[in-house]
Formats: sequence, structure tokens, C-alpha cells
Amino acid sequence: MKILKTDEAFFEENYSGFLKRASEGDAQAAATAQGVIADIRAQGDAALFDYTERFDGHRPEALEVTKAEIDAAMKSIEPKALQALKTAAARIRKFHLQQKKKIAASWTTQNEGVFVGEQIRPLARVGIYVPGGLAAYPSTVLMNAVPAKVAGVKEIIMVSPWRDGKPNPHTLAAAKLAGVTKIFKIGGAQAVAALAYGTKTIPAVDKIVGPGNAYVAAAKRLVFGKVGIDMIAGPTEIAVVADDGAAPESVAADLLSQAEHDPMAVSVLFTHSEKLIEAVQSALDRQLSGLERRSILKKAIEGSGLIVKTKNVNESIDLSNRFAPEHLSVQVKNARKTLPKIRHAGAIFLGPLSPVAFGDYLAGPNHVLPTSGTARFSSPLGVGDFLKRSSVIEVGPKAFEKLGPVVVRLAELEGLTAHAASVSVRKKI
Amino acid sequence: MKILKTDEAFFEENYSGFLKRASEGDAQAAATAQGVIADIRAQGDAALFDYTERFDGHRPEALEVTKAEIDAAMKSIEPKALQALKTAAARIRKFHLQQKKKIAASWTTQNEGVFVGEQIRPLARVGIYVPGGLAAYPSTVLMNAVPAKVAGVKEIIMVSPWRDGKPNPHTLAAAKLAGVTKIFKIGGAQAVAALAYGTKTIPAVDKIVGPGNAYVAAAKRLVFGKVGIDMIAGPTEIAVVADDGAAPESVAADLLSQAEHDPMAVSVLFTHSEKLIEAVQSALDRQLSGLERRSILKKAIEGSGLIVKTKNVNESIDLSNRFAPEHLSVQVKNARKTLPKIRHAGAIFLGPLSPVAFGDYLAGPNHVLPTSGTARFSSPLGVGDFLKRSSVIEVGPKAFEKLGPVVVRLAELEGLTAHAASVSVRKKI
Repeated sequence: MKILKTDEAFFEENYSGFLKRASEGDAQAAATAQGVIADIRAQGDAALFDYTERFDGHRPEALEVTKAEIDAAMKSIEPKALQALKTAAARIRKFHLQQKKKIAASWTTQNEGVFVGEQIRPLARVGIYVPGGLAAYPSTVLMNAVPAKVAGVKEIIMVSPWRDGKPNPHTLAAAKLAGVTKIFKIGGAQAVAALAYGTKTIPAVDKIVGPGNAYVAAAKRLVFGKVGIDMIAGPTEIAVVADDGAAPESVAADLLSQAEHDPMAVSVLFTHSEKLIEAVQSALDRQLSGLERRSILKKAIEGSGLIVKTKNVNESIDLSNRFAPEHLSVQVKNARKTLPKIRHAGAIFLGPLSPVAFGDYLAGPNHVLPTSGTARFSSPLGVGDFLKRSSVIEVGPKAFEKLGPVVVRLAELEGLTAHAASVSVRKKI
Repeated sequence: MKILKTDEAFFEENYSGFLKRASEGDAQAAATAQGVIADIRAQGDAALFDYTERFDGHRPEALEVTKAEIDAAMKSIEPKALQALKTAAARIRKFHLQQKKKIAASWTTQNEGVFVGEQIRPLARVGIYVPGGLAAYPSTVLMNAVPAKVAGVKEIIMVSPWRDGKPNPHTLAAAKLAGVTKIFKIGGAQAVAALAYGTKTIPAVDKIVGPGNAYVAAAKRLVFGKVGIDMIAGPTEIAVVADDGAAPESVAADLLSQAEHDPMAVSVLFTHSEKLIEAVQSALDRQLSGLERRSILKKAIEGSGLIVKTKNVNESIDLSNRFAPEHLSVQVKNARKTLPKIRHAGAIFLGPLSPVAFGDYLAGPNHVLPTSGTARFSSPLGVGDFLKRSSVIEVGPKAFEKLGPVVVRLAELEGLTAHAASVSVRKKI
């Protein structure tokens, strides 16, 4: 890993280069996705079958997963695995129920003769994209479907490619546990298009959430506006802020755990401890050689791994705030006391016993988190993403008399005379 | 206006065509905006001056509006106009303070040995785009800046083009009343690019909100990811649901008040009353001929105005839900009782004395609303758009012992062995 020291001349240049990691759209993927979307809109199901055959290596008899297929999946998985999924689902549900309680229900009030408020409702129908293939992620199903269900979404439509026609039983089990309504054996940009515009078989949804490859991301960007989308995820990231007391083996394992996702994954350690830097470096070497995904890990750690030698914990936190990581692990004395200083991070993991993997699976909070510095302005996926507000306004007679002339004056300032007339015409009522 | 009857054969075809109004990106505007963004990123302030000269017809001495210029604007406007702006600002602030109270502050709890919660914080720096030129909209300043201020955003950076070098004094006054931090005399895609990437003079922001023309919209779409954006607004819309008792003059005035914004504006009346339809039609003709912006109004009403003759109020509401209008005006007996049936609308105006213009200026709720059917999944601009959440997780020793093996099992199901190792390495601590 490259080491930068904050008091050295080249730090500013290297670190600010490092901060400019905003993921931009992939033009080639966008062009491909645009063609796929056009075909799905024009030909519906027929194009879905064709693309599934071409990209996923099988032509399904039917697009929808049957109850028998789900039952078979449930039976095929080990009881301990099912139990683990149940534990995760229950803990995620509990947290999101707590989160829902913090969000107001519909409310109204009287503001000097004007009845105002907000009507808050769940979205009607939501689509969840779950990547398939070799690496399958039942945790993705839970993290996307559970908050939708808790919000009160009636129909949750899941799509996931069945590479070579084979299901991932854990993914199907997670869908069943999370309360998914319908599951379709489709993926890629074609699945996003089908969810956005609907086909004879696939119902059009109001919002599409869930991660995917470059084509899925490009398709989501393109259908944004026709439907809502969650966010466009960049490579995963971890920043560790640590002091002398941190366990080097833990810190190294945390840096590696995010790095195994993607050769582009970003792992950064901010610490003022020379001793820790040395110990983490040798722990990294030692652990790396024993891990299965070491070719990915090596690329990630060498390409976008960074150790920043700071002056003290405060500077470490300050630099982490500027980085705004997806995951922030704080392994310093009295970690919880640093919370007020942490301004930008998707999820904050405190203390020695909170590896990011706990948050990925079952601590409860969502693992769908803002990447690429977007934690400066965006939030983890949550129940609120599956709710929407409508404003409510009813003007009473006294308020109409008193405020009507003010509205007319403001409309006239803006040159909107029909707006003014919509008030003055009512005086004659 | 075209009249459709729900029991006629051509209704389905015409109405579903009408529902497909999702605004898609403008490719030509996107190409232009992309070039502008690249120039601002490469040349910074120099390109800003050049584009301002080219597009806004003047080369400013300095980009930032001075205190003296703001003071001069405050002095130049009529006291009654200033008072009207103050009334509007106060009412909008009051509503958004009420809204803020409904949003939770940071919270934490213990879930069986795991400390979890959410840290909620305002964005640090926000950019507000305010269209300039002949039509200037002080109400836009209030509706965008006040919720940011109420959320606790420290720096609110406003940009607005000064066509031919002249300021709009009402816009400047509104900025002062709303607590805007800095104002720059720039507009178009170049202003969006400057806010997203920063220049020597313009500070880079975390989120850009506010309406603009096709180039501004295209630029916002392109910088989305680098910064947050509010939404891409389509043409404004109103749906009126009315019964026999509605005042035809009011209904006609409401349909016209949105239509005056834009020849593409959409105005729809849903009613089962033949009598009302006839009366509204003649009121439209009569009112139209007396209004200043009649050329815009005529285009809008003829091009995208619609009267739908329904069977009853319930069918009117049902069709309005499928349309998901930006503004919904309910002019039926006991209008408030229809609220539970209304599922999709940006803002709902109840009863005979609630013209949309009240909501545009001073009822209190925001006038930045979802258009083009996006009310199915998105919400009015609000305080929440200027706040963000970070999840907080701290695993205690007992929970680590109990749940650690479950995390390991789930990580192994997903083939993420470094995730599993980040737990198991800690057992040796």
C-alpha cells in the first residue's frame, strides 16, 4: 500500500487526486443499455427471452419463478444456512421498524387559517435487482426487500438472472423470508427496462433498487425519471481510523474484507501510529497469502489501497471526512466519543469488535450505502426510500381574504397574471 | 380542450397515451452541456466569464454579487412588495420548521448487544439555481433556500444569470430574506458545472437544487453522482377533480394558471358533471381572451389540455391517481374527506378557496413538486432533502460471540472469505 504523510509536500497532491473518485457514467455501457431498453419497449417479452438466451445462456420456459421452484430451493439448503438467513432477516427487520417509527406518519395542522400538512404513503410497486451468477448475494435481497416491506410496499418484484438456467437457492430463500411478491429469472439492462416500462409478463414498477454491473447501472441511469432509482453504486470502500491501541490483525482484515469485492475497491487507513502502520503492513502480507480471492485483493490493495500517516486522531477523522467513505471503521480508544466529529460516512463501525461484515449481514442497519464520496449528500437505503409525501393545502375563508392580495402581489411581481387571476376570480364567488 | 368520456371506446387509447408523458433527457442539450462542463473543469473562472458574455450578453467585472448591490436592490423595491416577500418567507419557514420536527434527530438504541442508530446531519454546502432574465422568480429563491436554511445547511450558494448585466431586485431581496450566503451572477450549464466542480471563485457544493432550462437540466443530470441533485422538472401540471357544485370560473382559472407557465404545461379536468364541463369551457374562452399570456395559454390548453368526463367522483380520483399530477385541485363537496383516496399527487389543494397560486407563494408547503407522473415515487422538496443519515454500529463482546459465527456462515454462503476472516481473526484478540 502506498503511504502518504500529511506533513510532506506531495501529500496534498496525492490525497486530493485520491478524493476525485466520483464515478462517472460508462458511455459504452450506456449505448448498449439504450439499445436493449428500446428493444424491450418495442418487443416486450419476446425480446426478454432473446436477451436472456444471449446473455444468461438459457432460454427459460417461463419468466416467472414458480412456487414449486421456491419450495425446492427452501428444501435444498442446509438448516444452519436457513437459520442464519432468518437471524439476519429478523435483525434487519427490527432495525428498519425502529427507523420507520422515527419517520412521521401523515400530519396536518392549521397555520393561521390555512390547513396544511403532509400525506405520507408507501410506494405501490417496487422492483429489486439482485445480481446472479457465480457470486450470489442473499444479503442483497434482505437489505433491499425488507425496508420496502416495512415501509408497506404492497408488491415487491424481484429480478435476478439464472445463469445457465440454474437458480441460487439462498437467494430464493432470502426472497421468501423477506416477503418478495414475484420473482423473475431475468437480469441485465433488459430486466431494468422490463421493470421500468413493463411487458405482458413483467409488471411496471415505480422504483428500481439494487446493485448490478455496468450495464445494469447504465440502464438505471437511463430509466431514472420514468421510475425512481436508489443510487448508482461505485466500487466499495473502507476507511479505518486507528490509533496505537488498535489490533493490527483486525485492521488488516477489515481493509482486506472490502478489497475482496472488486479490484477497484478502495481501502484506506488513517493513523498517526508508526508502530501500527508497520504491524498492519506485515499483517496484510501474511493474511493476503492465505485468502481465496487473493488475485482480486492484490489488485485492489496495490491499486487503490492507501495508508495515510497523520498527526493525531483528529487529523485522521478530518481527512476521513474529506474522503466521505462508504464504510468507516473507528478503532481508537473511546471510539463512540468520536461520533460528533464524524461528518461524512455511509456507515460508522465503532470499536474493536465491529468488523464491517457485521453490518453487511446482520447488525440491522442497511448495507446499501453511498459510495464515491456521495456520503456528503446521500444516505443509506432505508424505509424512507419506499415512502413518499404529498403536501396538503386548504385555505379557509378568512385566510383567503387576508392573504389573497399578497398572493396577487407576488404573482404580479413574477409576471404571472393568470396566477393572480385565479385568486381574484374567486372574490366574486 | 379535448374531451374524453371514460365509457367510450377511444378513451383507453387516448388516456394511456396521455399518461406516457415521462420526460426523457434532451440529447442535444446534453451534448452542449457536456462541452460546457468540460470547459469549466479545464479553465475554471476564465471559461465562466466567457460563457456569461456569450449567453447572458454581458461580461461582469466580478462574478460575486456585492453587499452594495444587494443593499441597492433592497432599497429599490416597493415596500409592499418587500412586505409580501417577508410574509411568504415567514409562512414557508414556519411550515418547514414543522416539517423538520417530524424528522427524527440522531438516535441510537441497543439491539441485543449491538449498539445501532443513525446520525443525522445537514449537508455542508448547497447550490441553488435560480432562473433569471425577463421572468424572474423570487418565490423560487424562497422555496429552495428556506428548507436548506431550516435543515441547518451552513453555506447556501445561489447562482442566477444577470441578463445584460442587470439584476432582478426581487430575487436579490428574496435571497437576503432567505439567508443565502453568497450569490453569483452566472447561469446555464456553466453555473451548474461551476457549482459541481468548483472554480477559484465559485465554491464546490454538495448538492444542486432549483429549476432551469433544458441546458441546466441536462447539466444537472450529468453532474449527478459528483453532487446530489433535487429532481429534473418537466412541464408543470394541474389536475382538477370537480363535481356539480364547483365554480366554473374558479376551475377555469385554475386550469389556466398552470398553463401560463409553458406551452407544454398540462391541464386536466376530471368531472362527471356535463353542466360543469359546458360552463368551464365557456369560462375558459372568456378568461383566456383577457389574459396577458394568451399565446402561451392557447398553445398549452389546445395542445395538452384535457377534460375527462367520468362516471362519478371516485372514478375522477382514480384517473387522477393514474395520472399522478404535480398539482391536484379537489373541488368537490367535503373535499377533505377525499384525502384517503388520493394516492399520487405532488400537492393536494382542497376546496373552493385553495387556488394553486396560494401554494406557489405562501401557503407554506414547498412549490418544488414532482412532475411527469413522478409523484408515484417522489416527493415535494423538503427539509429532508438537505439532511443525510449515517448508520452507526458498535458490536459488544457478548453479541460478537453469539452472532460472529452467523456472520461467518453468511459470508461463506456468498463466497466472501475475507469477510469471514474479518470476524474470525478477532477471536484471537
